[in-house]
Amino acid sequence: MKFGGTSVGSIDRIRNVARRALAAQKAGNDVVLIVSAMSGETNRLLSLANQVTAVPHAREMDVIAATGEQVSAALTALAVQHEGGKARSLLGHQVRILTDAAFSKARIRSIDATAIRETLAKGEIAVVAGFQGVDDGGNITTLGRGGSDTSAVAVAAALGANVCEIYTDVDGVYTTDPNVCPTARKIDRISFEEMLELASLGAKVLQIRSVEIAMKYNVPIHVRTSFSDAPGTMVTGEEGLEAVTVAGVAYDKAEARVHLVGVEDKPGVSAFLFEKIAEQNISVDMIIQNVSRSDANRTDVTFTMPKTDLERSRPIIEEIAASAGAQEVRYDEDVAKVSIVGLGMRTHAGVASKMFRLLANEGINIQAISTSEIKISCLVASKYTELAVRTLHEGFGLSQAPVKA
Amino acid sequence: MKFGGTSVGSIDRIRNVARRALAAQKAGNDVVLIVSAMSGETNRLLSLANQVTAVPHAREMDVIAATGEQVSAALTALAVQHEGGKARSLLGHQVRILTDAAFSKARIRSIDATAIRETLAKGEIAVVAGFQGVDDGGNITTLGRGGSDTSAVAVAAALGANVCEIYTDVDGVYTTDPNVCPTARKIDRISFEEMLELASLGAKVLQIRSVEIAMKYNVPIHVRTSFSDAPGTMVTGEEGLEAVTVAGVAYDKAEARVHLVGVEDKPGVSAFLFEKIAEQNISVDMIIQNVSRSDANRTDVTFTMPKTDLERSRPIIEEIAASAGAQEVRYDEDVAKVSIVGLGMRTHAGVASKMFRLLANEGINIQAISTSEIKISCLVASKYTELAVRTLHEGFGLSQAPVKA
Repeated sequence: MKFGGTSVGSIDRIRNVARRALAAQKAGNDVVLIVSAMSGETNRLLSLANQVTAVPHAREMDVIAATGEQVSAALTALAVQHEGGKARSLLGHQVRILTDAAFSKARIRSIDATAIRETLAKGEIAVVAGFQGVDDGGNITTLGRGGSDTSAVAVAAALGANVCEIYTDVDGVYTTDPNVCPTARKIDRISFEEMLELASLGAKVLQIRSVEIAMKYNVPIHVRTSFSDAPGTMVTGEEGLEAVTVAGVAYDKAEARVHLVGVEDKPGVSAFLFEKIAEQNISVDMIIQNVSRSDANRTDVTFTMPKTDLERSRPIIEEIAASAGAQEVRYDEDVAKVSIVGLGMRTHAGVASKMFRLLANEGINIQAISTSEIKISCLVASKYTELAVRTLHEGFGLSQAPVKA
Repeated sequence: MKFGGTSVGSIDRIRNVARRALAAQKAGNDVVLIVSAMSGETNRLLSLANQVTAVPHAREMDVIAATGEQVSAALTALAVQHEGGKARSLLGHQVRILTDAAFSKARIRSIDATAIRETLAKGEIAVVAGFQGVDDGGNITTLGRGGSDTSAVAVAAALGANVCEIYTDVDGVYTTDPNVCPTARKIDRISFEEMLELASLGAKVLQIRSVEIAMKYNVPIHVRTSFSDAPGTMVTGEEGLEAVTVAGVAYDKAEARVHLVGVEDKPGVSAFLFEKIAEQNISVDMIIQNVSRSDANRTDVTFTMPKTDLERSRPIIEEIAASAGAQEVRYDEDVAKVSIVGLGMRTHAGVASKMFRLLANEGINIQAISTSEIKISCLVASKYTELAVRTLHEGFGLSQAPVKA
């Protein structure tokens, strides 16, 4: 049972978490809680570090940030004890959750389930601090924002748990963002693959890495709200899951478009460009290379990248572009990526053309397209985001519950 | 170099600590910093726990409390880096500082100096989180209030350091509390034994346990202020130290007097009483048993104990007293213990009688007396505390600097 920052955001809410855990234990389960820092706490801690130095060393940042989950884990254990139960907090180095040494964005390598199993064997509830681990050298690491989801799924996998319940402030995964599309509907069950695409495409409900681990180890995730007992969304393998054509619509306004005008059109120029860009740790998402322009063997190359990286990356991109003979570099931050995701696309033809037609009918110009086996993304002007989302949601019939085949 | 909560109480002060450490390193020293939690932080954390439950489990309290030093250690490392130096924070479990499992008042068993030595060998300043350790089972422990002094001296002993500098908000050890006695004088040098008595008798400048360790491993302690470069007080072995008759006057208002009236006066009754009291973890300080009263083989037994323990202890004491045949139990919280400490008492006769005379001249009644080789304590009514301290301070000539023999 994983509880996010909002769900442990006050002493009263921590008590609520303790009562839920005890109810689950009373129902005959061994219970492991994974908790995030109390909401606001991580920001408070990072701001302290930023007051000391503008560019804090990541190792020390992780030492500071990890205290947020350390406090909430111990408070939660105390709350269980206060309700008459038995509990014990376990930190990343106590479990131990071994990660690589990439401070602030570490990846879990392995989890030793011994300490948790010993705790459970004593009838205690294990309260594991989320978001944190320890590297080979005993240094404290953190998994990046939202990393507690990953902690939870990885611990569930290490224990062979029946289910990993992710408690959050929404009641499940929706067909699209309800703030944008009032007819958005809670999905009862969705596949790992679809959830992975939705998370990658901007749906914030689960951290991408957590879904990857769940898929790899086949750990069912139950995304649900901590504010009621209503069931949420089960994220599972495909077995017995009806393959709907389109399961959900996602959007992402976090990317900027970069347009390299008049790059020399000769073999290897794209490879050169994107090798250089990758070397600079600039993470590129969509890439479009137009056919050669009629004038003088030149072509345009367009790609998208996180807006937050744009400022530091501009001089680098312009240097790389110049060395590839580009005549000009243009930037557009007013873009959004709108995507549809569904297992059924594998077998249903015509999904892409239907998407393009729906957008065209509303006068929305498509600036770039990228596809995978189970998703199609279109880049559009950001002012069209909400219209595009609602249009696709209605056009693919997502407002109605899927009809059983 | 150990810095207390006030010395790391703000970002500016943490910067000051970093600059001091770098100056010491530049002067050719290997530097280890030991830091407390930022002032107020430990109370904030304990209050969080107390909001969850009135009687928090000590294991989880330690997990919470240890985050205070974790944050200040990492912030201090960042501050050193910001000033252009190299630094690394080390937590109790990283050092590792092995303690027993007595949560909230753990005692250090051993310190592995390897991680600190490796850090120093790289030219880095090691910033060790004070107050915390880890037990055999990997549980986080804390050393009790003021425990960072103990961390510092123990680390200095493990490293064979030349000196352990304790930075605090006062500029050294005084002949008595300057708030009570305006002629109190900073002591330049004092022996471990005298410091130990002064600390035990209520002088708050160093934790008792830290002085014990310093004495055992012969680690000189330099108590000084973090707000100036002025030298403070050196606490050292006796070699070359002039044995003044009285080095300091201490007082303590934290004890209550318990008077058991009419206990049966037969062999073994005191042993029975204090065995039973010890079994209940009531810590007794002074004990006075009067000679038998003329009426019917009964005697009075008086002892002192911490006021903070009195409430929970009353029913226990009354049960024990009844089983020893006591007719009545009386309590007095309006008492204070006033003490004089000095190595010279070992060889100078008449110190005790001079003390009693000085108090009697002021009309101060002595309720109880206890002595050791180098200290004499008198229990008096608490309203006389300040008068008694000033009288003894003047009477033993402490206002003047000691004359070299």
